Amino acid sequence: MLTGQKPPGESWPANRPPEEEAREQRLRAGDREAGFEIRDDFEPFDQRNDMFCRVQWDQSVMSDAVADFYAQQKDPKPRKADGFRQRDFALRNASWVVARTYSERGQSEGKREGFQDPIDPYHPPAAEKLPVDDAAQITNEVKRVARFLGADLVGIAEYDERWVYTQKFSIIAKEARPNELPAGLKTVIVVGHAMDYGLINTFPSATGSAAVGKGYSAEAANLAMLAQYIRNLGYEAVANMNDTALAIPFAVKAGLGEYGRHQMVISKEFGPRVRFSKVFTDMPLAVDRPQPFGVSEFCDICDRCADACPPRALPFGPPSFEVANRSGLAGVKKWTSDAEKCFDYWTRIKTDCSICMRVCPYNKDFSKPAMRALRWLMGSRFRRLALWLDIRLGFGKRKLPADWWQEAGVTER
Amino acid sequence: MLTGQKPPGESWPANRPPEEEAREQRLRAGDREAGFEIRDDFEPFDQRNDMFCRVQWDQSVMSDAVADFYAQQKDPKPRKADGFRQRDFALRNASWVVARTYSERGQSEGKREGFQDPIDPYHPPAAEKLPVDDAAQITNEVKRVARFLGADLVGIAEYDERWVYTQKFSIIAKEARPNELPAGLKTVIVVGHAMDYGLINTFPSATGSAAVGKGYSAEAANLAMLAQYIRNLGYEAVANMNDTALAIPFAVKAGLGEYGRHQMVISKEFGPRVRFSKVFTDMPLAVDRPQPFGVSEFCDICDRCADACPPRALPFGPPSFEVANRSGLAGVKKWTSDAEKCFDYWTRIKTDCSICMRVCPYNKDFSKPAMRALRWLMGSRFRRLALWLDIRLGFGKRKLPADWWQEAGVTER
Repeated sequence: MLTGQKPPGESWPANRPPEEEAREQRLRAGDREAGFEIRDDFEPFDQRNDMFCRVQWDQSVMSDAVADFYAQQKDPKPRKADGFRQRDFALRNASWVVARTYSERGQSEGKREGFQDPIDPYHPPAAEKLPVDDAAQITNEVKRVARFLGADLVGIAEYDERWVYTQKFSIIAKEARPNELPAGLKTVIVVGHAMDYGLINTFPSATGSAAVGKGYSAEAANLAMLAQYIRNLGYEAVANMNDTALAIPFAVKAGLGEYGRHQMVISKEFGPRVRFSKVFTDMPLAVDRPQPFGVSEFCDICDRCADACPPRALPFGPPSFEVANRSGLAGVKKWTSDAEKCFDYWTRIKTDCSICMRVCPYNKDFSKPAMRALRWLMGSRFRRLALWLDIRLGFGKRKLPADWWQEAGVTER
Repeated sequence: MLTGQKPPGESWPANRPPEEEAREQRLRAGDREAGFEIRDDFEPFDQRNDMFCRVQWDQSVMSDAVADFYAQQKDPKPRKADGFRQRDFALRNASWVVARTYSERGQSEGKREGFQDPIDPYHPPAAEKLPVDDAAQITNEVKRVARFLGADLVGIAEYDERWVYTQKFSIIAKEARPNELPAGLKTVIVVGHAMDYGLINTFPSATGSAAVGKGYSAEAANLAMLAQYIRNLGYEAVANMNDTALAIPFAVKAGLGEYGRHQMVISKEFGPRVRFSKVFTDMPLAVDRPQPFGVSEFCDICDRCADACPPRALPFGPPSFEVANRSGLAGVKKWTSDAEKCFDYWTRIKTDCSICMRVCPYNKDFSKPAMRALRWLMGSRFRRLALWLDIRLGFGKRKLPADWWQEAGVTER
């Protein structure tokens, strides 16, 4: 997405020490490796412009439908349609409980952990700092711990303030707030949590949305533990999800996937069916490198997500600097969705929509050898054949939520 | 364990309606099926006598070592020994964070959710009650949801007040409190969360203890979501872990395992390497039945846990009504540990001990066909051969914590 040659505004001042100069060179080299292309006028993102914040302050996108959408997160109005019945909303709303417990606990201070604010530390860093003499060894241990605690993917990226929000927004106090972070942050532990294949295939439905809620709940819980592990070794750890900074550039740089047309990271292991969150730390961990596997080239020839998007919120054509409105990240050459159209559709169906994730040819169960063979084909020069096959074989079609429930009849013991 | 013929004290009054009479008959029949043998003088357990409560009020078991044990849950004093270094305590204490976040959030009200009090409902039951016309179908759906939300095992038992604590104990306020439950509870959803095989094999160590902490954290999070699912269907749901009631009798009746010499439930899928918690509800779910697979008979001839217990807290010989002190459940014929000796050992090593779990011949990785073959042998009349083989093949030996960490060097991607 980015390759600007000039320091992007205030975040990288012109006169700075040589180690900062070297750091910039390193980050720029990483940009090229990751395929990032940044324009000189790029400015980091202001969380105030995030769609979920805008509906709290921007008259142009506020509506009764938005208020009703949020109200149904707790008190749904089930309908007769499969996927939108009582059991479906019951499951969706239940799956969010842990994430909501975290996000609501600091309400009295105007905080919303995991969404507008980092997850509060459970306990401060240990007084004794574990000496890091073998960064590779410690990094492997940190990754081991992340996986043990529940992460499906983990990688390390260098800390990079370009992706940090210029300010955050309190949707409780309805005001912008400074995005304060501890000094000396060096690295980012990026973790991925996969979402249920069977459920994602039922999108749009409240049932499918339970995969998202469970993903958020798992992220909140596992991130809280992982960050505490880092603190227990004597280091700073800022556990952040949707708050504090963009996740995508860090996930790509940490080698966890490539950026796709649908504005999601496509991982090798789970395709787009994965949520990313991150722990910022001053621990000098060994960083990973981008691991492209042909996704950009495939997205270039594939429009399945853009085609399937009911409100036409996804772009056709090559990556560009175009943004539809203030919710798009300006100054970066990439595929950018129209977040207004996207969220408006959510408020109409009363649940989030991930049709783009469902129809993505990378949304497959890669534990199966045949699916891995297809993935290889998609990353090869036979990508057009792969796309043709994907459609012919019927991938991406919506599965019935009732069928997901039906599997309940199978006794697994 | 139990078969008393007379109603056990106040909990089953003598003059009661015929449906209550029928219910008692049903529970008694279930007792026989589960192998429970109860004496007429049996009284439900008072949580005040639980070892973790007693150390808060009973002078005879309070000590500086106990205080230090608890202090190290947050501020450990790492030692040089493998398994007790900074990284080991860092991991153990991190793994507990979610469980502790739940258990500490109601501190100002003297509550300790998941340990002395149920997990607080996130949201009250829906106004609309889902009609249950096909209990089997709904039960399958509930089980599906429990597994989706993270449970490794799930079964249903009939609600039974004999296993409910006569009173609970607030370790914050240091006082006994009434154990209040909603009226009309009918069934119990029992869920099991498996613990990491590799880590359990490093016991005793702070590293191994991370498997326990992670188990508790997973239980708290998943139970909170599962109970909310039930509430969202319009029913009561009391999410309880170590609080409110014993878990073992419900787990056995729900068909999730058999009772073992080491005072733990041995499940078919994970042996003793599993934690049980429960959701009490007024939903009329279809109950499961005990599923014995030869464990009682095997424990009869096997003393590996009792032999390996450093403080000699586990019983040799057949099940009996004997209890060493007030922390034992009186009036039930079973193997009962000496909880005072057990916990005293924990305070000496500054972490919990699960050597009995590690050495249990049922502590195997049953995803492997060879291990399933051994399990079959253990449940057959060749059980003595199985026990001999188990010892000869070197099962139960302590693995080095350093080796668990070493696996970190293996890049899994």
